Amino acid sequence: MTPRQPDEPRTLAALLVPDILELLESSPDAVAAETEEMHPADLADVAEAIPEHLLPLFFRSLPGDRAASVLEYLDEELRTTLLEEMEAGQAATLVAAMQPDERADVLEELDEDHADDILEAIPEAARRETEALLEYAPESAGGLMTTQFVSIPDAETVEVALARVRAIAREGKREAMNTVYATDANGVLSGVLSLRELLAAPEGARVSDVAWSEVRSVIATADREEVARMVTEYDLVAVPVIDAHRRLLGVVTVDDVIDAIQEEQTEDVQKLGGMEALDDPYMQSGFLALLRKRAGWLSVLFVGELFTASAMGWFEGELQRAAILTLFIPLIISSGGNSGSQATSLIIRALALGEVTLRDWWRVVARELGSGLALGSILGVLGVIRVIIWQQLHTRGVTLGGLPMGYDYGPHYVLVAFTVGTALVGVVTFGTLAGSMLPFLLRRVGFDPASASAPFVATLVDVTGLVIYFTVALAILRGTLL
Amino acid sequence: MTPRQPDEPRTLAALLVPDILELLESSPDAVAAETEEMHPADLADVAEAIPEHLLPLFFRSLPGDRAASVLEYLDEELRTTLLEEMEAGQAATLVAAMQPDERADVLEELDEDHADDILEAIPEAARRETEALLEYAPESAGGLMTTQFVSIPDAETVEVALARVRAIAREGKREAMNTVYATDANGVLSGVLSLRELLAAPEGARVSDVAWSEVRSVIATADREEVARMVTEYDLVAVPVIDAHRRLLGVVTVDDVIDAIQEEQTEDVQKLGGMEALDDPYMQSGFLALLRKRAGWLSVLFVGELFTASAMGWFEGELQRAAILTLFIPLIISSGGNSGSQATSLIIRALALGEVTLRDWWRVVARELGSGLALGSILGVLGVIRVIIWQQLHTRGVTLGGLPMGYDYGPHYVLVAFTVGTALVGVVTFGTLAGSMLPFLLRRVGFDPASASAPFVATLVDVTGLVIYFTVALAILRGTLL
Repeated sequence: MTPRQPDEPRTLAALLVPDILELLESSPDAVAAETEEMHPADLADVAEAIPEHLLPLFFRSLPGDRAASVLEYLDEELRTTLLEEMEAGQAATLVAAMQPDERADVLEELDEDHADDILEAIPEAARRETEALLEYAPESAGGLMTTQFVSIPDAETVEVALARVRAIAREGKREAMNTVYATDANGVLSGVLSLRELLAAPEGARVSDVAWSEVRSVIATADREEVARMVTEYDLVAVPVIDAHRRLLGVVTVDDVIDAIQEEQTEDVQKLGGMEALDDPYMQSGFLALLRKRAGWLSVLFVGELFTASAMGWFEGELQRAAILTLFIPLIISSGGNSGSQATSLIIRALALGEVTLRDWWRVVARELGSGLALGSILGVLGVIRVIIWQQLHTRGVTLGGLPMGYDYGPHYVLVAFTVGTALVGVVTFGTLAGSMLPFLLRRVGFDPASASAPFVATLVDVTGLVIYFTVALAILRGTLL
Repeated sequence: MTPRQPDEPRTLAALLVPDILELLESSPDAVAAETEEMHPADLADVAEAIPEHLLPLFFRSLPGDRAASVLEYLDEELRTTLLEEMEAGQAATLVAAMQPDERADVLEELDEDHADDILEAIPEAARRETEALLEYAPESAGGLMTTQFVSIPDAETVEVALARVRAIAREGKREAMNTVYATDANGVLSGVLSLRELLAAPEGARVSDVAWSEVRSVIATADREEVARMVTEYDLVAVPVIDAHRRLLGVVTVDDVIDAIQEEQTEDVQKLGGMEALDDPYMQSGFLALLRKRAGWLSVLFVGELFTASAMGWFEGELQRAAILTLFIPLIISSGGNSGSQATSLIIRALALGEVTLRDWWRVVARELGSGLALGSILGVLGVIRVIIWQQLHTRGVTLGGLPMGYDYGPHYVLVAFTVGTALVGVVTFGTLAGSMLPFLLRRVGFDPASASAPFVATLVDVTGLVIYFTVALAILRGTLL
């Protein structure tokens, strides 16, 4: 992402905090009027800036719906602390006023005892609704959906539908209101139309006449990734969620889809960096949790890297005879790792976006073989040039500020240069191929392709790269250095 | 992202293609009725599957608006070819029927001559509108916005506003219709309300009474990242775009924001992988374009890696005296690179999401110093254990399948083990710190933090890692091996 400005001050929130603190002390009842026009996200910023012991009072000072909206935008950790420390009655009132999907999410964050206490204090209907939502996995369509949406029997007229929407809107329900879903006599999803299309529909028409009969929907157990793909592909603002009988259960709104996309992306970047994905934002992760997520993969990679020590051992004889070869080991294996890192990033992202699919693997092989050979040749030529220039600098005794320049690679320096160049072609080609194929392989066996992290590829290429390097050296230098 | 199912067939599109081909031959006029209920995205899939020479006929067979919508979803490359090969008149009719923002985007993809020809054949009003949109950078709010939106003078009543919305909706305009914007007498943005809020408003009320006066808006030159942050933070479905005088110019809708988020994420992953971001999807990028984006950074990194050869040269004497040290070089420098890759991925993502900001750098230093020391100690212990076990296996003459196991690190193997362990602590700590600080440094000097790619960090750590390793070796092994 392009740079966010260094610490844009949240002016509005920051400016308001002193006023609100004063009001909380003198006349808490005035807080609601003072903050009436503010977006709940901004009011949540205010809440995060006032002392924690004043928060219960602050939330009591707001009307119920308003307090619930602010709670939805509040920092997760703070919200959990607040609800757990609050008396169960007040917490239940707040939570009951939240949107059903947010309510389920919030209860999932609490420890089980507190969640149960609050759940029991919630009115019957809301409790049932919440318990039903809690049944779904948090990363499924069911876990993302809200049960507040507008559905209309498709035999009704447009006027009846509009009156229904108006009534629901006046109740102050907030979500999934830009789209109206039509259902048949069995509750099966039969059509969709936007609020705007409903407004534009001719008077007297039946909903079934004006609704679009081809509705994109997802089953409640679908992964959130599938929901995100559908929203992206069809430019939707809401996706209806159905059960196995196509009965309408709820609606996933686009704001939750965007959050899901961002979370998935964070996970992908962390995996690509060679660690397990964090459960919480970086700054909110505990030191030990952070360490655990990193140490696991790092140790696995380390054990993989131990094979480089073994590989070096196999070529001990060659290393002793031609110590000059040692100098280029980091250069050669790292170039393989870097080219592998490029290839794996490209393919992981193309797979995630559906730009390539498993069956494209051979087309990718062909492309990456070409790319690898070309990139390897470029680096190979750079490598040969470097060895020859350094040798010339040494031979001609060039100095810079009194220091001798260049390096003496010995009488066979041309052969050494070609060994380095050829090894680079081989290692970069191997790195590129391995980096591009590993994500396919992981998906094929059912893993997340993003686990083909840059460090994972680099480790693979380090060990193989050493073998390639020494094999090339043996072929070129046999009879001279080796 | 989690796996997309291997090639889910786009059943609908695939099933329809033969029918459509037949209709195109026998009675093209029937195509429109046959495909009436389909989502334009699906119809675009159909278009992509039929032979290219039939496409102009296919698009002529659809009503103008419908053809334009399908064109909006069509594969970019195919759309460009199609419009460039089409007669300018037909192309202009199609393009003129597109939404203003899409129209500008499409014209930007064409070569200049074709774009000018089409633009000239577009009706006056639409042409002016398009030319105005083309003035904005494609990655700015102005470049993303549509000029089709609903604004109402705030002195009007709710009834007038509703009638206006209904009229516009009946014209078949499609975008940015879920939100209504209020403007004052000077065209300055003064309020916002959702279509649902408008429906729920009491009869006779003025727009200024029921609209929210605190409107989140962006200036037309703002980066698309800022738009994305606003949509994510405030759960918006549309963001109004204003000029320097706060006059309403257009609206960015959430579907374009999602596309922008996906594109930014692709760029970030590619940069993190150590290459320039591609302009087109992987499979649609030309071989040479792809190579260029990769070869540049790979060569820069290679030149950086050349310093490893120099560093190895500086310690030539040590390497000759204690050749055993060579064995662990790849292990040590790669461990530093891996830990750096983890840290840089974490921080890049946290910066992108605004979870940490520039002024948090010292808190990050403190955390990462702790993490680095802890991770380094874990790997250090693993390293020491490995050396000692291998030595024991060798000393005791253990064999596996007839092959001798272990390795002889010589009489000073305990010191060698401690050298490896200590160097690992140093290198991993340095890698972690360098990886976490580089993104901050890049942002501080105005670059994209995502350029602190895993390979970039690895290269930095390779050179430094060698110096750390040999310095530790000199301290521990002086008087024995060195």
